[in-house]
Amino acid sequence: MMRGLSWVWPAVLLMLVLVGGAASEGSIAGSTSRYVRRLAESVDLPYDSPYFAVPNGINPPQQVHLTQGDYDGRAVIVSYVTVKLSKPKVRYGKTEGDHPWQAKGYTTQYKFYNYTSGYIHHVIISNLEYDTKYFYKVGTEEEGAREFFFTTPPAPGPDAPYTFGVIGDLGQTFDSADTLEHYLQSYGQTMLFLGDLAYQDNYPLHYQVRFDTWSRFVERSAAYQPFIWTTGNHELDYVPEIGETVPFKPFNHRFPTPYWASNSTSPQWYSIRRGPATIIVLSSYSAYGKYTPQYVFLLAALKAVDRKVTPWLIILVHSPWYNSYNYHYMEGETMRVIFEPFIVAAKVDVVFAGHVHAYERSFPVSNIKYNITNGICTPQIDPSAPTYITIGDGGNIEGLAANYTEPQPSYSAFREASFGHGLFDIKNKTTAVWTWHRNQDGEAVSADSVVILNKVHS
Amino acid sequence: MMRGLSWVWPAVLLMLVLVGGAASEGSIAGSTSRYVRRLAESVDLPYDSPYFAVPNGINPPQQVHLTQGDYDGRAVIVSYVTVKLSKPKVRYGKTEGDHPWQAKGYTTQYKFYNYTSGYIHHVIISNLEYDTKYFYKVGTEEEGAREFFFTTPPAPGPDAPYTFGVIGDLGQTFDSADTLEHYLQSYGQTMLFLGDLAYQDNYPLHYQVRFDTWSRFVERSAAYQPFIWTTGNHELDYVPEIGETVPFKPFNHRFPTPYWASNSTSPQWYSIRRGPATIIVLSSYSAYGKYTPQYVFLLAALKAVDRKVTPWLIILVHSPWYNSYNYHYMEGETMRVIFEPFIVAAKVDVVFAGHVHAYERSFPVSNIKYNITNGICTPQIDPSAPTYITIGDGGNIEGLAANYTEPQPSYSAFREASFGHGLFDIKNKTTAVWTWHRNQDGEAVSADSVVILNKVHS
Ligand SMILES: [Fe+2]
Ligand SMILES: [Fe+2]
Repeated sequence: MMRGLSWVWPAVLLMLVLVGGAASEGSIAGSTSRYVRRLAESVDLPYDSPYFAVPNGINPPQQVHLTQGDYDGRAVIVSYVTVKLSKPKVRYGKTEGDHPWQAKGYTTQYKFYNYTSGYIHHVIISNLEYDTKYFYKVGTEEEGAREFFFTTPPAPGPDAPYTFGVIGDLGQTFDSADTLEHYLQSYGQTMLFLGDLAYQDNYPLHYQVRFDTWSRFVERSAAYQPFIWTTGNHELDYVPEIGETVPFKPFNHRFPTPYWASNSTSPQWYSIRRGPATIIVLSSYSAYGKYTPQYVFLLAALKAVDRKVTPWLIILVHSPWYNSYNYHYMEGETMRVIFEPFIVAAKVDVVFAGHVHAYERSFPVSNIKYNITNGICTPQIDPSAPTYITIGDGGNIEGLAANYTEPQPSYSAFREASFGHGLFDIKNKTTAVWTWHRNQDGEAVSADSVVILNKVHS
Repeated sequence: MMRGLSWVWPAVLLMLVLVGGAASEGSIAGSTSRYVRRLAESVDLPYDSPYFAVPNGINPPQQVHLTQGDYDGRAVIVSYVTVKLSKPKVRYGKTEGDHPWQAKGYTTQYKFYNYTSGYIHHVIISNLEYDTKYFYKVGTEEEGAREFFFTTPPAPGPDAPYTFGVIGDLGQTFDSADTLEHYLQSYGQTMLFLGDLAYQDNYPLHYQVRFDTWSRFVERSAAYQPFIWTTGNHELDYVPEIGETVPFKPFNHRFPTPYWASNSTSPQWYSIRRGPATIIVLSSYSAYGKYTPQYVFLLAALKAVDRKVTPWLIILVHSPWYNSYNYHYMEGETMRVIFEPFIVAAKVDVVFAGHVHAYERSFPVSNIKYNITNGICTPQIDPSAPTYITIGDGGNIEGLAANYTEPQPSYSAFREASFGHGLFDIKNKTTAVWTWHRNQDGEAVSADSVVILNKVHS
């Protein structure tokens, strides 16, 4: 765990420049990696995989995962599932094995065609101290209590370094496990998850048991640090043929988001502040036309950002706006044309997306001059525009997108179709280092690295 | 009433060519009308206007309106409101004053902040004969029964002429009344209503009483012919500040649509067949990204169209995709970029939109060659593409959009900022005549006329 060692980063920067993988955002020509990935098909882990093991106990808490529980990071939502009914309750404290305080929550359950979920518990722990390690215990001793821990972020402010992990389209294949294991070796402190979680909808009747296995699988990371959830198409679970017509029903029961804390009215879009960053989460599969709730929310959320407090402004969305793979090509256009002018004006630093099962990084680029008849509709290098990073390469069952549009468009800086994860390592208010780690390498190796300078403070 | 007199139309066509207002779709240069409209501000009719009068009786049915109640036009939904609780029931028959049959329905009611609606009744009358006039009575004799009538459409088929009225953004001003009175003098048989009904949201707290006055106002037309409802932004009623966070709540309580009959799962998008036309209604303010319910619906709805049965294919949507006024300029882009390729491939004949408070007709035009980097993003004349008609000039309180983008874009065939309504007069499977009627003229005069040839059958 290297978190917070800010004296290290100049050396890291130097290293990036010296090794071949380092790139600067100022580069003119993009590159397509010559790395040849293993072409084996992604296969889901079997039901009896140790990754899906149910913990011991009479009615043990399982599928434990955390997310931020307020706007500024002083609250955490602890979610878990029990097979039998149990009181939603979490005990916690600052010392391992000692939990003097407790928080209560609520329990929910859902049916999906012929599936009935376990008892899904959500407990908010509030008024935590910043930058503090807490140990927490879920479940009763008799039923099979389990202890985990997390560390709260520093107070929102410009001078705290912080490292976000970034994963999209994880799934639950052997490759998914590879990705998560690599991430566990990293120094990421909070996960920015870009949507498409379990791929339960690749099974007949959108078999929801695969949501249970997935949640047990990610517990090894998600019980120890908050996952900031974005909703992807695989969370829609819209199956009118079997009477399931409410989009995101299972997801919303299982994965709460603190949307109310940013005056959002939907779990699918919200914003939080965490250390030096404001993070705005958008939904590709909800309404975003002018006047709609999400549109109204985005404008207000951008207006609420104070870059003196949180110098870094990050957007998470499932469907990428700049993507040069042949997979899902231009699917993000419909959101880009309406939202891009606002996010360029707001000097957003980075937009992370998933959906495309590959990795791609853009130059800072914008395409907002079009007026229908002027023909000005080619993305242009624009230093005040965000960097777009597509990283839907978590390892899901659908396999990699290995088919590029050719020639590589001028907006595309680097692309490679391997599984992996990313780290967005904020050093201070002017500088962050982005590294992408492919699964075939050790965690210490980054296959693509770039220094990202803050759009407001540099 | 001239409906069905098909021998008349060649004479009408000739007349259109002879009088100055006639245009042919093949024209090269568009024109901006030199007609100078009355510039008086639109003002809402006062609450004591005769247009809003409550009928006599102890608990009389009011706000009576019809919509189609199935896919093919053999059912009608009768909606009405009573102040006191009353059984939802409609008696009907084929002779005036004689109502041997009856249909039952359901009653709903909603609260909106401090407003409580009346009892809103919806009664579906099914298994009607085609092309038949029915008389129907709502309410009991003791409470104040009222009789109206409607005529069912011909069976879906290529050879039945049929005339649709078209109105958008009606509101309830003196101009609105003018528009509706003009329409009542026409031979329109079914109203294609393009969204933005009552403008109740221009009042503090989205004063829902204005929905009641509006529904009494339009009864003079809507109780006698079905209104096919499109949802506009003024139906959102999204006011989180006062706890109203469910989009379209009042609209959906008041104005049912037969969405279930076309395998839609939302009242905001659906399709129907009526005589020689299939009509697909879309929602600018719901989700339409790939994989979303509306997207899935549109593709299935287009696939289900059989142009041998219904030669005419019409789309209704509130926010226009081609609009050269400065008002709401390019708001429709976000839906256009995702849906246009499908509707051009399906050879849709006409897309009607409202929202912009003016009138505009495009040439058949498309803009679907763009691939992000090729710069091919200028709308082009395309004989296989639809004609786009914006007609959000019903008369609402917000006034007219009198400010054009200059020069007139090449896709724009005719534009004028006057209040009015339109008639889409389907003559046979190859030919329809579109006329736009501004309120300052008598109903017989059309300020813009064009012969529209069917995209499949000519
Ligand atoms: Fe996806
Ligand atoms: Fe509108």
